[in-house]
Amino acid sequence: MIAETPEPPYTAVIFTSLRTDGDNGYAEASAEMERLAREQPGFLGIESARSGLGITVSYWRTDDDARAWKRVAEHVAVQRRGRGEWYSEYEIRVATVTRAYGMRS
Amino acid sequence: MIAETPEPPYTAVIFTSLRTDGDNGYAEASAEMERLAREQPGFLGIESARSGLGITVSYWRTDDDARAWKRVAEHVAVQRRGRGEWYSEYEIRVATVTRAYGMRS
Repeated sequence: MIAETPEPPYTAVIFTSLRTDGDNGYAEASAEMERLAREQPGFLGIESARSGLGITVSYWRTDDDARAWKRVAEHVAVQRRGRGEWYSEYEIRVATVTRAYGMRS
Repeated sequence: MIAETPEPPYTAVIFTSLRTDGDNGYAEASAEMERLAREQPGFLGIESARSGLGITVSYWRTDDDARAWKRVAEHVAVQRRGRGEWYSEYEIRVATVTRAYGMRS
């Protein structure tokens, strides 16, 4: 569940959100978006958690790959449902990972 | 709960983890670490979520501020408990946020 990412540099898209009440088709669309992300050029991994606040971090080989994913994701989101109905607030931050370290089992 | 961050660039520290079973003093130490983070130079904000996987993203004015926080955090963690007892796996990624956009209520 922790993404297996290569040596930096690579790109992280940090998506932080607060949901509206009710599902409104969100669970299904969210699963579809993740499947779609995995098919995109440059996809490296994705990590998600929600406990009130939701945080999804997707990792991409290059900044251009992350930009291309943004266009795909927005297109799908518009097709599926206006964002205002899923999220009361959100912030998307695009970042270049410069170093990484950890402990794996 | 979504961090109020300034215009990029700034630094994000993405901490992704899987917990061990049992609390082992984690909840208390985690709250203390967050209080401590908020007191550090260059602290901009922090966002956390856990649902199986835990993701905490802290935001810092500069890369040096993030490095300084790493030293403080490690020191406290060592004092409080070995990491292996809180986390079965973790990954820390340090990244430079280059652009950000969102929707706030």
